[in-house]
Amino acid sequence: MVRVGICGVTGYAGYEALRWLRRHRHLEVVFATSEAQAGKSLAESYPGPLDIMLTSVEDAPFDKVDVALLALPHGAAARTAVRALEAGAKVVDFSADFRLDTPERYAKWYNHTHEFPDMLPIPYGIPELNRDAIATARLVANPGCYPTSVILGTMPLLRAGVVTDPTIIVDAKSGVSGAGRAAKVNMLFGEIHDTVTPYNIGHVHRHVGEIEQELAKLSTSVTPTVIFNPHLIPVTRGMLSGIYVRVDASLDEASLRALYTTAYAHEPFVRVMPAGQLAAMAHTVNTNMCAISVTLAQPGLAVIMSSLDNLAKGAATQAIQCMNVMCGFAETEGLL
Amino acid sequence: MVRVGICGVTGYAGYEALRWLRRHRHLEVVFATSEAQAGKSLAESYPGPLDIMLTSVEDAPFDKVDVALLALPHGAAARTAVRALEAGAKVVDFSADFRLDTPERYAKWYNHTHEFPDMLPIPYGIPELNRDAIATARLVANPGCYPTSVILGTMPLLRAGVVTDPTIIVDAKSGVSGAGRAAKVNMLFGEIHDTVTPYNIGHVHRHVGEIEQELAKLSTSVTPTVIFNPHLIPVTRGMLSGIYVRVDASLDEASLRALYTTAYAHEPFVRVMPAGQLAAMAHTVNTNMCAISVTLAQPGLAVIMSSLDNLAKGAATQAIQCMNVMCGFAETEGLL
Amino acid sequence: MVRVGICGVTGYAGYEALRWLRRHRHLEVVFATSEAQAGKSLAESYPGPLDIMLTSVEDAPFDKVDVALLALPHGAAARTAVRALEAGAKVVDFSADFRLDTPERYAKWYNHTHEFPDMLPIPYGIPELNRDAIATARLVANPGCYPTSVILGTMPLLRAGVVTDPTIIVDAKSGVSGAGRAAKVNMLFGEIHDTVTPYNIGHVHRHVGEIEQELAKLSTSVTPTVIFNPHLIPVTRGMLSGIYVRVDASLDEASLRALYTTAYAHEPFVRVMPAGQLAAMAHTVNTNMCAISVTLAQPGLAVIMSSLDNLAKGAATQAIQCMNVMCGFAETEGLL
Amino acid sequence: MVRVGICGVTGYAGYEALRWLRRHRHLEVVFATSEAQAGKSLAESYPGPLDIMLTSVEDAPFDKVDVALLALPHGAAARTAVRALEAGAKVVDFSADFRLDTPERYAKWYNHTHEFPDMLPIPYGIPELNRDAIATARLVANPGCYPTSVILGTMPLLRAGVVTDPTIIVDAKSGVSGAGRAAKVNMLFGEIHDTVTPYNIGHVHRHVGEIEQELAKLSTSVTPTVIFNPHLIPVTRGMLSGIYVRVDASLDEASLRALYTTAYAHEPFVRVMPAGQLAAMAHTVNTNMCAISVTLAQPGLAVIMSSLDNLAKGAATQAIQCMNVMCGFAETEGLL
Repeated sequence: MVRVGICGVTGYAGYEALRWLRRHRHLEVVFATSEAQAGKSLAESYPGPLDIMLTSVEDAPFDKVDVALLALPHGAAARTAVRALEAGAKVVDFSADFRLDTPERYAKWYNHTHEFPDMLPIPYGIPELNRDAIATARLVANPGCYPTSVILGTMPLLRAGVVTDPTIIVDAKSGVSGAGRAAKVNMLFGEIHDTVTPYNIGHVHRHVGEIEQELAKLSTSVTPTVIFNPHLIPVTRGMLSGIYVRVDASLDEASLRALYTTAYAHEPFVRVMPAGQLAAMAHTVNTNMCAISVTLAQPGLAVIMSSLDNLAKGAATQAIQCMNVMCGFAETEGLL
Repeated sequence: MVRVGICGVTGYAGYEALRWLRRHRHLEVVFATSEAQAGKSLAESYPGPLDIMLTSVEDAPFDKVDVALLALPHGAAARTAVRALEAGAKVVDFSADFRLDTPERYAKWYNHTHEFPDMLPIPYGIPELNRDAIATARLVANPGCYPTSVILGTMPLLRAGVVTDPTIIVDAKSGVSGAGRAAKVNMLFGEIHDTVTPYNIGHVHRHVGEIEQELAKLSTSVTPTVIFNPHLIPVTRGMLSGIYVRVDASLDEASLRALYTTAYAHEPFVRVMPAGQLAAMAHTVNTNMCAISVTLAQPGLAVIMSSLDNLAKGAATQAIQCMNVMCGFAETEGLL
Repeated sequence: MVRVGICGVTGYAGYEALRWLRRHRHLEVVFATSEAQAGKSLAESYPGPLDIMLTSVEDAPFDKVDVALLALPHGAAARTAVRALEAGAKVVDFSADFRLDTPERYAKWYNHTHEFPDMLPIPYGIPELNRDAIATARLVANPGCYPTSVILGTMPLLRAGVVTDPTIIVDAKSGVSGAGRAAKVNMLFGEIHDTVTPYNIGHVHRHVGEIEQELAKLSTSVTPTVIFNPHLIPVTRGMLSGIYVRVDASLDEASLRALYTTAYAHEPFVRVMPAGQLAAMAHTVNTNMCAISVTLAQPGLAVIMSSLDNLAKGAATQAIQCMNVMCGFAETEGLL
Repeated sequence: MVRVGICGVTGYAGYEALRWLRRHRHLEVVFATSEAQAGKSLAESYPGPLDIMLTSVEDAPFDKVDVALLALPHGAAARTAVRALEAGAKVVDFSADFRLDTPERYAKWYNHTHEFPDMLPIPYGIPELNRDAIATARLVANPGCYPTSVILGTMPLLRAGVVTDPTIIVDAKSGVSGAGRAAKVNMLFGEIHDTVTPYNIGHVHRHVGEIEQELAKLSTSVTPTVIFNPHLIPVTRGMLSGIYVRVDASLDEASLRALYTTAYAHEPFVRVMPAGQLAAMAHTVNTNMCAISVTLAQPGLAVIMSSLDNLAKGAATQAIQCMNVMCGFAETEGLL
């Protein structure tokens, strides 16, 4: 049995990780941390079926676990990751602290100096892209929800070199759990319900940094610029990215779809929709799946719909998938 | 033109009042206050079509208005009401500060000493009950949303003296705007969506004080004890109270319904549902209506469904209805 | 490996069963039926990650399975159950066809003659009540969602003989999946969203028949009459029953709660909430749990909140729990 | 007093029209039709505060009204419009029957022959574009919800001649009331709640025909092709279009915004958001407003957010606005 510790279990992503880990047959959860609730039991603060005694990160016994899952705020995560690594644990970090390959890029998008620049770069935790690097890593940077959606949604086109215009437009819709569980007026039920709210549109959302970094590695024809336009939708969880890509005008829709079915033929967690079906949030919610549809809107303009659950494939279950790869488990263990 | 000032316009109830006042033909809104947003415009902080410059309560020119509507926190409201009255304005106070008839009752339910005990009692602002007292009042205590729902829902039975058991059970469902617009984790979208949450059940919710006070005045057969069981529902606005009342076992359903149709025959804002139709939230949302259905579940046990919009008939539009009565306008002015 | 067939997999409850069965380690799903979609694949008609070829009930090979789960309409279910039993399969029937113990009771609540009166009574599938009978049964009648909620919510009080008034009032709130997936105007998103709708209140809902039947077996002090008042809530899944029971006035809240903690001490799927916490929908959604809280509203009046997921413990996972008992598996297999 | 008749009042748009007409001071509603509910009262079939006796279209006394609002299905609307016109009434038709300027264009997008080709073209009912033509018309074609959103959202750019690429990408999000009130499985609460569903994406949605027709009239630099990608969102009402337009790369964001503030300077129902604020659904729901924000994502690429209420400015209140223009009322009468 692999021993696991979870940090930040009273946030949405940490709780989601704990929820899924119950189904994993080869591990046991040894500790769970919460800054606000340390000393209490999880069930006291979280209305659900799970329970475990909560400790603070400071008191977390990283030397007693084989793997630590860190669902901590940006900044705090890096220091905790270092501590866990030094104690001998492998680490999957949910934060953005290790997602960018260079201190310069980190400073640009997160506006302060990286505390551990010598550790960069760290393998970026999308197994469908980086399975080998993840398998041998002791620290993996679990990607953001939007980036996973956009990267999986464009990878086959970029690798095939059929993208003809560097500007890729993404119109993304996300459930509000992505914003976390902090008390903010703009996240109140009364502010989110019955409306759709765009925010941080253009080229400013922090996820643009990691999206462009990864797309550039994949692309063989252009260096993508991502115009990224996120919206809050009145659902708790789920994500759908509409991706508009200019492609070689000689390609028909079937050829484009073939790039996807080939690329993901052996991936258990990516589903390419058949012709005539569009990926929707409902295809993936509460699963580790990413569902992708490809539509040719006019010659040379592809519309990709990429759906995943922001708390699952966009955070907690992708982390477990990485952990499975790191520990040598079947990649699907605990994730069906 | 009557000049009106609104205090607390960036809360849900204050904003709702401003929204409705646009439709009133005989008044103009002179000022609007917001503690957090003073000095800014309303549209900056509130995503909607309305706009007005915001001032602080301290700077509000009560001497420039004929009526002040106070949508302020409990406690702050009373002091502001006194100030507005001294400046010559009539006042409708949305808070609980003047709803209870005695300082003792206030201290019991709100757990501190009333600052202006000599002002009590103040007319309780349900025009369907107290039209004459409201017409001549300079200060009216606008009722709570739950109390309006329960009082209108039981008044005909109580006045007719057919209630046989003092214990009245209320199972109430409310939209979350009733909890206000303060940043609290338990009011986040992610905590309210896709669940129903009971809270403060039994005989402890503060609204029980004013409900029992008013029911006792109406009742001719028993002194009611209200077992009050509120639930948060994933809607922004709306309220439905299921009220379980033991009545004279000789009465059939038609006789019970006749008590309601008679009592409310001339009320423009109360709708008694015909036999076979149950009052639902949808009957009243975004209106100043209260819809009531009466069902005889078994001989001697009546089930009343009482529906209103907690922000409208439960707060803002009831206040405007009171204002209309206080100012001699048609009671329906601006409320259709 | 136990071989399982599911009938009615394109309805909400049948689909839910298939979703959970993926996690069960000791069975394989051999066939799935759908009248409307026979000949197509499940993924064509259902936006989700699951897929299986669909057959009609007529063509279903019951002789190739060990267990058949029937999520079929009332009426059709009984005939299919007989066919499956004759083919040698064990059966868990989700419908109401075998829930009532006598043909007379069935005729009263379902308004037509039972087709197989000699088969009655059949074990009622709440393992927490009837584990032994279920273990040896070849056919089990899976209970309704509301009945499971009310029966588990009152069983400890009834068995202890502390209920003093036969009239038990239930104010129940349900997600709309309970109404099934048929196209009806009153189930459209536009009719359900942003409202709460009571329906069939009083003593008329068909579930009253099985609730009263089972409560009568449990009760040692009264023969309960259930005033049952269901409401549609704008959630897809989840159920919360507020249950108002008159009890021996000498009992305090701790004594009442002790009846529950004792009764359910060894039940993996019933959670009695600690003092001060109320059961909410969020405690059980997407799980096979039933969460129950007990509050003494005034001496002699208990308020029980009983929460479960209408599609899970109220239908599909309760059926799997029964199947586990019938097949000798661990009762929790596939249900965590 | 102008006498008005409404056809199709039990659909969402017709009901919305009736709801708003209550606030109009210069008219009375003389009749309302419903095919399914003729002979009953509106309140019997519609859970809300309104009531009126319903008649069939066949029996509607068009000779007794000055204006007829037709919220009828496509096809039936044209024949009824002709009948009403012959009876002497002015007509605002909510359907698509008269929106396209030529029979050929109609046949292309609606796939059958226009019944009254000689009547075309008819003034297209966006007062902000066609106020003069509407003022003198006896029949006005009320636009679709998506087209109003896109046309108002791009008009200032097109008229100014700054659009440089004919391909305009629209990623549109709509509440489900736009799909009407017919019973369909894919519009059930359980299918719409907690998901976002794209449909008819690319160049196939019927609204593309009228959008491209009107944009071509406005544009001075290109003949637009609209790649139109609609999504169903779990809200009843509201619409937000994200519009991606290539513009002259020398323009900064302030210059683009100035085109909008100038174009709409005197329009009471169009609100151009100030710099730094994005239009969201909440800005316009339950109003006749269209809110528009302009963001320069990168040099040469503008992102327009255009928000309106699909049942209001997208249907019913736009029709009343047209009626106000046709009848010589203040354009804002009844619409605040």
